[in-house]
Amino acid sequence: MPQKTIGEYSEFTLIDQITKKFADLKKRGTIINIGDDGAVFSSKLHTAHVTSIDSFVENVHWDSRKTNFYDIGWKSVNAAVSDIAAMGSKGTYITIACNLKNDMLHVEFIKLINGIHDACVKLKISVIGGNLSNSKTTTITVTAMGTMPTKNNHILSMQRNKAHIGDKIIVSGQIGGAGAGFQLSKKKDIDEKKLLQIFHKPHARTDIAERLAYSGVQCAIDISDGLLQDLLHICHASQVNATIHREQIPLFKESIKIFGLLQAQEIALTAGEDYELLFTANDTVIKKIKRKKIPFYIIGTIDSKKIEKKAVNISLVNDKNITKITKNSGWEHFGHE
Amino acid sequence: MPQKTIGEYSEFTLIDQITKKFADLKKRGTIINIGDDGAVFSSKLHTAHVTSIDSFVENVHWDSRKTNFYDIGWKSVNAAVSDIAAMGSKGTYITIACNLKNDMLHVEFIKLINGIHDACVKLKISVIGGNLSNSKTTTITVTAMGTMPTKNNHILSMQRNKAHIGDKIIVSGQIGGAGAGFQLSKKKDIDEKKLLQIFHKPHARTDIAERLAYSGVQCAIDISDGLLQDLLHICHASQVNATIHREQIPLFKESIKIFGLLQAQEIALTAGEDYELLFTANDTVIKKIKRKKIPFYIIGTIDSKKIEKKAVNISLVNDKNITKITKNSGWEHFGHE
Repeated sequence: MPQKTIGEYSEFTLIDQITKKFADLKKRGTIINIGDDGAVFSSKLHTAHVTSIDSFVENVHWDSRKTNFYDIGWKSVNAAVSDIAAMGSKGTYITIACNLKNDMLHVEFIKLINGIHDACVKLKISVIGGNLSNSKTTTITVTAMGTMPTKNNHILSMQRNKAHIGDKIIVSGQIGGAGAGFQLSKKKDIDEKKLLQIFHKPHARTDIAERLAYSGVQCAIDISDGLLQDLLHICHASQVNATIHREQIPLFKESIKIFGLLQAQEIALTAGEDYELLFTANDTVIKKIKRKKIPFYIIGTIDSKKIEKKAVNISLVNDKNITKITKNSGWEHFGHE
Repeated sequence: MPQKTIGEYSEFTLIDQITKKFADLKKRGTIINIGDDGAVFSSKLHTAHVTSIDSFVENVHWDSRKTNFYDIGWKSVNAAVSDIAAMGSKGTYITIACNLKNDMLHVEFIKLINGIHDACVKLKISVIGGNLSNSKTTTITVTAMGTMPTKNNHILSMQRNKAHIGDKIIVSGQIGGAGAGFQLSKKKDIDEKKLLQIFHKPHARTDIAERLAYSGVQCAIDISDGLLQDLLHICHASQVNATIHREQIPLFKESIKIFGLLQAQEIALTAGEDYELLFTANDTVIKKIKRKKIPFYIIGTIDSKKIEKKAVNISLVNDKNITKITKNSGWEHFGHE
């Protein structure tokens, strides 16, 4: 019998295998460990740090025939920092490992550095370390670090496993822009600047992360894999089912114009790399968010507890019908089982 | 005129270009920034953290025809943690990004995870996060984190720029073992287990890092690029010249037996990946190290201040003659200028 390759497993199964393997290691000082967007750790009482690592790989995260190193630098920083924004942090530092080809033009190297630099300026964070290595495949790996907001000596983290029944499901901005931009980037005939810009230059939502946490939001994730996929992560971790109202998903008018309403909704549901925050909140918390003038869009509800041994159930509702989603869909790096 | 590739610059020139570019960014809370083995940062007074990022790349750090994923997992963790040991920390956490090929056998994936796991157990550290991605080139990137030792609210960091004239130059153990093992790994006729073991399974010296810092050692680096290269890093950062006594370099008897004394010395001077600590200390500090029963080997002296505008000068002395080393030698990832 031939041996299985990792391509025959889903990314999440492989991660699960790793998580189990490392369960025996002492978690000295960690408050939140593997399994969320970032890990939260503390060296002393009432000070907590959060960290997350993320890679950008040639021909996986971008098409090498259309490489724009400024954008790759920008995007790799924002993607990594987005994970700690989803935990409630505004971010403070990154370290960055660049594995680059020997024949990379030096002007391209400078573009990469400029993209990283400008993203850091925008996000108000510093690069405090790095590593350069030669490689046949260009890979940029960023570790993001930040401190966590606290209130009365209590750490205000936003976690995947804190969605409660009755909570509204909320997104922090219009979604599907990056997915639409990605599809347009493959076409020569349509040059829709706004959508392409969203795809090439996404923004990690560190501008609202801490304020959401202070408002009382306890459950959040960043939309990197796609709305449905990321909501499934929340539902799995919180052991709940959810309902999404298709019409309430905030879309870009440019995307509707080019792809039509249904297709624009599909893109918003399944395409990733928007880096908006997806979170849940009860009415009291929503009032506080309103008072802080943070923009938000309610798109659904956490409606029931997951039935033991049954799959998580997400209902997609529109005027006419209900579609039940019970399995993963979205971007996975390895195979589907 | 054709444009220059990054392969035409040295690794250190490229790092210098990056460092200058990022000099404008605010270093909120950082005590030691880019330019040392790790960055030290603090969120509150009297608590300091250290972090460093390091990549292991297929066909750069290992030969893909002889891939042993257990060893790669082990080595990538030890190499990253070694950097924060060189700062004075015993390490607490790592995050790890694995960029793996789709056709990687799942049993090989398990070996990789086991190697990472066992290295963490040995070093008494935890994995608190990670990332999996597909790639055409296998790359393992590890971010190491730790807390820094303190005394009377003062952070006891060991830095490259703290070597003083009169200090002895010291290594924490026998060196050249990994370099000798690397050469043997390319030969079929000699199977010298001990040297191969040192090459394949190095140990980050977190067991002595904190004790050295508490003894008063202020200047250290880990030997990852090669003794001469890493000493040059210290000399450049501290603006001093140094003398090394060839005969005092502690070698493995197995290496002398196979390669002869002179060649074994050459390997120890120029080959990297030993991960022993190279540090400097005055007589008072050396007495404290002795009292703590930490093994150490004096191999030379920091002997003069670097003359302005002249290159750093390292003198290699033996019974018969003196060799002056004034330029870089050792492992560089990109070209030599």
